[in-house]
Amino acid sequence: MIIIDGGITSPKGFMAAGVGAGIKKDKLDMAVIYSELPAISATAYTQNRARAAPIEVMMRDNSKVLRAFVINSGNANALTGEKGIEDARKMQQMVAEQMHLDVMEVGVASTGVIGRFLPMDLVAKGIVQACNELDRSVEANIDTAKAIMTTDTKMKSVACQVNLRDGTLVTVAGIAKGSGMISPAMRTLHATTLSFVTTDAHLERDPNSQWQRIMDSSFNVINVDGDQSTNDISVFMANGAAKGMPADDDPSFWEAVLWVAKSLAKAVAIDGEGATKLIEVVVTGAKDDQEARVAARSIVASNLVKAAVFGADPNFGRILAALGNSGSDFDISKVRLRLSNGKAVSLFENGSPLIVPGSNEENVARNILKEKRILIELELGVGIGRGEAWGCDLSYEYVKINASYTT
Amino acid sequence: MIIIDGGITSPKGFMAAGVGAGIKKDKLDMAVIYSELPAISATAYTQNRARAAPIEVMMRDNSKVLRAFVINSGNANALTGEKGIEDARKMQQMVAEQMHLDVMEVGVASTGVIGRFLPMDLVAKGIVQACNELDRSVEANIDTAKAIMTTDTKMKSVACQVNLRDGTLVTVAGIAKGSGMISPAMRTLHATTLSFVTTDAHLERDPNSQWQRIMDSSFNVINVDGDQSTNDISVFMANGAAKGMPADDDPSFWEAVLWVAKSLAKAVAIDGEGATKLIEVVVTGAKDDQEARVAARSIVASNLVKAAVFGADPNFGRILAALGNSGSDFDISKVRLRLSNGKAVSLFENGSPLIVPGSNEENVARNILKEKRILIELELGVGIGRGEAWGCDLSYEYVKINASYTT
Repeated sequence: MIIIDGGITSPKGFMAAGVGAGIKKDKLDMAVIYSELPAISATAYTQNRARAAPIEVMMRDNSKVLRAFVINSGNANALTGEKGIEDARKMQQMVAEQMHLDVMEVGVASTGVIGRFLPMDLVAKGIVQACNELDRSVEANIDTAKAIMTTDTKMKSVACQVNLRDGTLVTVAGIAKGSGMISPAMRTLHATTLSFVTTDAHLERDPNSQWQRIMDSSFNVINVDGDQSTNDISVFMANGAAKGMPADDDPSFWEAVLWVAKSLAKAVAIDGEGATKLIEVVVTGAKDDQEARVAARSIVASNLVKAAVFGADPNFGRILAALGNSGSDFDISKVRLRLSNGKAVSLFENGSPLIVPGSNEENVARNILKEKRILIELELGVGIGRGEAWGCDLSYEYVKINASYTT
Repeated sequence: MIIIDGGITSPKGFMAAGVGAGIKKDKLDMAVIYSELPAISATAYTQNRARAAPIEVMMRDNSKVLRAFVINSGNANALTGEKGIEDARKMQQMVAEQMHLDVMEVGVASTGVIGRFLPMDLVAKGIVQACNELDRSVEANIDTAKAIMTTDTKMKSVACQVNLRDGTLVTVAGIAKGSGMISPAMRTLHATTLSFVTTDAHLERDPNSQWQRIMDSSFNVINVDGDQSTNDISVFMANGAAKGMPADDDPSFWEAVLWVAKSLAKAVAIDGEGATKLIEVVVTGAKDDQEARVAARSIVASNLVKAAVFGADPNFGRILAALGNSGSDFDISKVRLRLSNGKAVSLFENGSPLIVPGSNEENVARNILKEKRILIELELGVGIGRGEAWGCDLSYEYVKINASYTT
């Protein structure tokens, strides 16, 4: 697998555009992704029961094949009742009309403020413009990635290529947004981070269960603030334009898709609202992989761990307290806790703390915590389960951003 | 029931003392509560699996009758291995020796920094001093309440009296501490907020299930930061010194105990680390009381709701998003959301938002959110279940306190 300098339209047969429709002031806020061929799709949705109108519409449609996807930022179209549902449907219809598609072949997603009606006149103009500007250019890739952003400070876009067993060269690309209200627990079938992964691989079977497995090791293990959004959605589209033998059972292909999903998920974590540092947690020795992920996620979700990392305070007891709250099994006498970033320091072993206040080890720990990327390694001592999770620190800036989001 | 100006020793037969043993610098940090008569007890403990040494010791003892309780602040004696267990046992033994009690009649609790060994020389001196200074004075009540505090800005102490059916006058009093790492889910039998409720009521039966019921409507519905502590404990002691008929089945008595527990729990919520406002949530129309409490607690636990309240931002969508994440059942078309504080404003009804940006209603909502005490009323429309929860806003100060707790 090689990483390429590309974007959402790098896989063959995809086009995209991002435009400014005026939903947000002077910023790109509407995107359309289009596939020249029907794309076999899998979509994961938020499990928040107060789901947004576009999520509701997509779940009702449950389309297995998509040709286009329309996305707006600046307004979540969430908690907007029947009118919200109608507006989401209109967005699908407008794209279908412009691109001569069936409504069921058009996906729809929104992100932004909750509880406000969409300005449909602006949305309508934006859709016409985006459909007219569909392209495969570097600019189109960048504008599309930017148009789905809200409080994000950086666009999130990755692409890679992999050779399948029959020699076919397949491209996988993805874009994502997400900065606050990040605690996804997306389920396929029934994920406010939005992410879109495109590929020209040729698939013959429903990729749903593979997509769920990939979600559980990527977007579903990141946490910015513990608030699962009303609008999370994560879309996979494979249009087969690369031709060749079916990729359904090719491990290299799914590795490439997993890499794209993980890269985007980490990019969302590091761009968490107000974040100054990326926290990576690797849990080993759990009863099984699921318990390892739950433990890792519990640690990156702890406000106290996040605030301590922000302040570079080696208050490691909070990490183990978060483990204790996760519900995952561990043997405290066998638990080992290590902080690292180039340098490494052991904090806890054999049921007891290894560092004391004022010690050299405490200083090493403090220096590691001053880095931009902190690795927490935790061994639970009860099995061979392994899991990772990614999050960010809790800063003054997070409070500032969220104390005045709508005003 | 009448509220009295008293403290932890207001019920007959109780004495207490709070002293400065030097665990914290220039602050009270050790307390002993003593009952002249054996007190029937119920204790609720944290469900965090990384439980502190004193919690472990208390759970092993499972004593149903207590004569004394020793508490230190400044050091949680948590994640301290076998040495921590030995130290907790020594604290019990020292009090037992001083007061001529059996070790099993002495309870022990700690709160403070996690992962450090107790300075047992200081603890030993503190215990001797506290046991010598046991008293029923106003000063003893105040010192005891202060000695269990950590980042608390205010002491939490309440007392009330109630006449039982047979005319017996019974006093119920309580003290509590807690400011950060507050998300208790305490279970009797096997609860870092510490709370101690004393009463001179005469009980004949194990008060465990009553105490659990009271926990579930008081301490278990408060949330400061979502981090359940390693050290939460909530102790009820009834020594019978008021004499009279048994109070086990007297509703007035349990109402008084519930009032004490609720008052202390609210006091912990409003004194949450960095808190500037108390958030009270009342949920009605839930499937049952349990689902109502879960929904209410999910709202006070949301970082996004907390930050919006801090900034007086009427971003009500976050309240409904938190409801959606709670797992509690609701009918969005029947959901009603209201903010009030003297004035009141309806935010959501019939599946749709009632306020639009820039409207007069939005201004009313913003003004309510500027108050120190905000009531959120939420009707779910699926039953008659009712529940409450209390929390606080998320401020810059919370981040500051927790970015440098040990340093």
